[in-house]
Amino acid sequence: MLDNQNPAQWTAVAAAEAIRDGAITSEELVKACLDRIREVDGTIQAWAYLDPDYALDQARRADRARRAGRPLGPLHGIPVGIKDILDTSDMPTENGTVLHAGRRPMRDSTVVALLREAGAVIMGKTVTTELAVFAPSKTTNPHNPAHTPGGSSSGSAAAVAANMVPLAVGTQTNGSVIRPASFCGVYGFKPSHGHISRHGVLMQSPPLDTVGVYARTVEDIALIAETLMAFDDRDAHMRPRARARLLETAMAPPPVEPHFAFVKSPVWDQAGEDIKDGLAELVDHLGGVVEEVALPDTFDQVVRWHRTIMEADLAKNFRFGAKEREQLSGILREMMDRGETHTAVAYNEAIDHVPLVRAQLEAICEAYDAILTPATTGEAPLGLETTGSPIFCTLWTYCGMPAVSVPLLEGSNGLPMGVQVVGRKGDDARLLRTVRWLLTRIS
Amino acid sequence: MLDNQNPAQWTAVAAAEAIRDGAITSEELVKACLDRIREVDGTIQAWAYLDPDYALDQARRADRARRAGRPLGPLHGIPVGIKDILDTSDMPTENGTVLHAGRRPMRDSTVVALLREAGAVIMGKTVTTELAVFAPSKTTNPHNPAHTPGGSSSGSAAAVAANMVPLAVGTQTNGSVIRPASFCGVYGFKPSHGHISRHGVLMQSPPLDTVGVYARTVEDIALIAETLMAFDDRDAHMRPRARARLLETAMAPPPVEPHFAFVKSPVWDQAGEDIKDGLAELVDHLGGVVEEVALPDTFDQVVRWHRTIMEADLAKNFRFGAKEREQLSGILREMMDRGETHTAVAYNEAIDHVPLVRAQLEAICEAYDAILTPATTGEAPLGLETTGSPIFCTLWTYCGMPAVSVPLLEGSNGLPMGVQVVGRKGDDARLLRTVRWLLTRIS
Repeated sequence: MLDNQNPAQWTAVAAAEAIRDGAITSEELVKACLDRIREVDGTIQAWAYLDPDYALDQARRADRARRAGRPLGPLHGIPVGIKDILDTSDMPTENGTVLHAGRRPMRDSTVVALLREAGAVIMGKTVTTELAVFAPSKTTNPHNPAHTPGGSSSGSAAAVAANMVPLAVGTQTNGSVIRPASFCGVYGFKPSHGHISRHGVLMQSPPLDTVGVYARTVEDIALIAETLMAFDDRDAHMRPRARARLLETAMAPPPVEPHFAFVKSPVWDQAGEDIKDGLAELVDHLGGVVEEVALPDTFDQVVRWHRTIMEADLAKNFRFGAKEREQLSGILREMMDRGETHTAVAYNEAIDHVPLVRAQLEAICEAYDAILTPATTGEAPLGLETTGSPIFCTLWTYCGMPAVSVPLLEGSNGLPMGVQVVGRKGDDARLLRTVRWLLTRIS
Repeated sequence: MLDNQNPAQWTAVAAAEAIRDGAITSEELVKACLDRIREVDGTIQAWAYLDPDYALDQARRADRARRAGRPLGPLHGIPVGIKDILDTSDMPTENGTVLHAGRRPMRDSTVVALLREAGAVIMGKTVTTELAVFAPSKTTNPHNPAHTPGGSSSGSAAAVAANMVPLAVGTQTNGSVIRPASFCGVYGFKPSHGHISRHGVLMQSPPLDTVGVYARTVEDIALIAETLMAFDDRDAHMRPRARARLLETAMAPPPVEPHFAFVKSPVWDQAGEDIKDGLAELVDHLGGVVEEVALPDTFDQVVRWHRTIMEADLAKNFRFGAKEREQLSGILREMMDRGETHTAVAYNEAIDHVPLVRAQLEAICEAYDAILTPATTGEAPLGLETTGSPIFCTLWTYCGMPAVSVPLLEGSNGLPMGVQVVGRKGDDARLLRTVRWLLTRIS
């Protein structure tokens, strides 16, 4: 990776090592990334807030700390893009809506605080859809600006894909980490629900909201995710647990050859020919280590349960006055209106089914190391009016299972498509190790 | 206590010590309790299920274990009454409704399993109101059979009050531990929410449901509660924490003289003259260690929020067919009908306010060691048609704060009335220590 003369293209693992070894300074790395942003962001528009001088300030501070011999965190000097729904004490956090224009949080979200503790440079805030739901913002697909980058973590996925930063943070309540990763051709990782703190993150729906990460390699995914998977009692869904050793596990070979369940899911007919063919080819290529497995027949209900939870929570958590509401998109207002009508009984039944549906999937998780399934319906759709369908993510988000979008396929328009690899809830490290094995098998 | 010739009247602490020392056998103790039951239960009717031979079997097994030199648990050989909504693998659990007549659970509830582990004799199942809500069953007040014993843990409170068992287990979702304790003149302890497992207990409303205990002394309360406060991951509201040393703490003198907040609460006008006068006298007697404190003005909303949560959860958790529904009481059907109409938004707002209201009460908890407030509106009402009002318990249940009903007062009909002593959530041991200090101060 270091053969490459442009540090903006380096992986985070390589760059962090180079900074530790003194082969490059954080300032040089951040400068290279800022140069790249200047070069391509006029078209891509991944950033909601970016102050190049302030980013360089942070980088120089990191370099001074290194020269002073202070202990270096695993992300020392590495620039990271932060979705603009995670609070930052030193930058605006506008949540993708004019209603929060100029909003300045008093405190960092836990994720941002952990990144700073690990030595990262908070590069800036990346573009999100309106309140991290469906209505798109300005970002375009780095592979073709006429196509959507996907949402809601549009800017984070696009910025990593276009080498503007090696790492970025996003969030997913339905398909908001995995879908942009698939459309932009990067690794996107949505960890198990409740493993990264949502404290200081715009609340959509606590039973579903999940912080995720983007990178251009699975090792980089492990590096940043390990930093973020720390217990935080301000997130009521977190449980104290031993810190996952993601990077070490991901880098290790699996003790036995992994086996995969190929899951078309009951909405296979919503997948385009491109991704169907691509997946079929991949399954063919992997041969004996893959078997096709059917999902339990509760899938339709899961989509309904997920919607009930998400809409009712949007209605509760997005409280705006009548005049303010007029500034929301029609699609969001409709979701919130429906959300007001859901009963407590229906909501709590939907919540109660989460462990039951997950238990149905346990049989697959026990027989196979991971599930292979589409990340999206195909390539990024043409146009910027929608961010595409999240339907291939809904089940895994609802069940809180960890998922990675792996940029393995290409569609007929030459745009990337992700293979979604899903693991057992809580087995995030093993999932990353299995993905890494998968990559060795197909390279 | 051992001066008393009838072991049925002994405290659990004294009886457990006597059994350990060989001064009495468990069989003798259980026999004395069974004699007492034969003597008084024709009128009181505290038991939903009681098999004297099986209770004696358990006692003889405990005696054999002692003679064999096996390690003895803290409740070795002590008979305990179990509210008939806690599952027992060896006795029916009928939940106070004909709809569950003859129901035989396959497994013990965690509470019952912990009691067996501690060496207790599971004496039998005590009468509950219908599905632990409002509709009364057959139990009468041990002090006057024309009066209600209170509900829903009617049999547990009455059995302990009438010396049929030294200890019993109940549950509270609104006022179901504290109210019968007040009416029957025993100690009733509702611990902090989430500190005793509800696994295997009839589910009414998980954010509110709390297992509690009855005894005739505060030391006995500490003894049994310490046994039950063990982490159980099958109860999603529990968090791993160090086991509370309730008994040791409760027996210790407070490091400084405790101070009390006297809280009339906004429903003081619903308290009868008896309890108003009794509390005023107590406050007078305590003198400088008590100050009157007003509650935050959210009380009315708290009652509404509590009702929204409880009714919506009853509607969801009590699922019966149309024909079965006809066998439910009118009052329960009305609650369930209202429960169906509550929206998810209203329910989740009610849930969201729990920590906010508790935070409002933190100022009181910081300035005072405990809160003094009525346990009930007064003496047990005449008649068996209702179990009385839970209004003086609602706030503390909603906030999950620990509360003890202390049998200190007597009304104009000669019936007991409890003073409710409330502590900070999680500070259960300190609350019991403070109650014990209070008793020394007034004796």
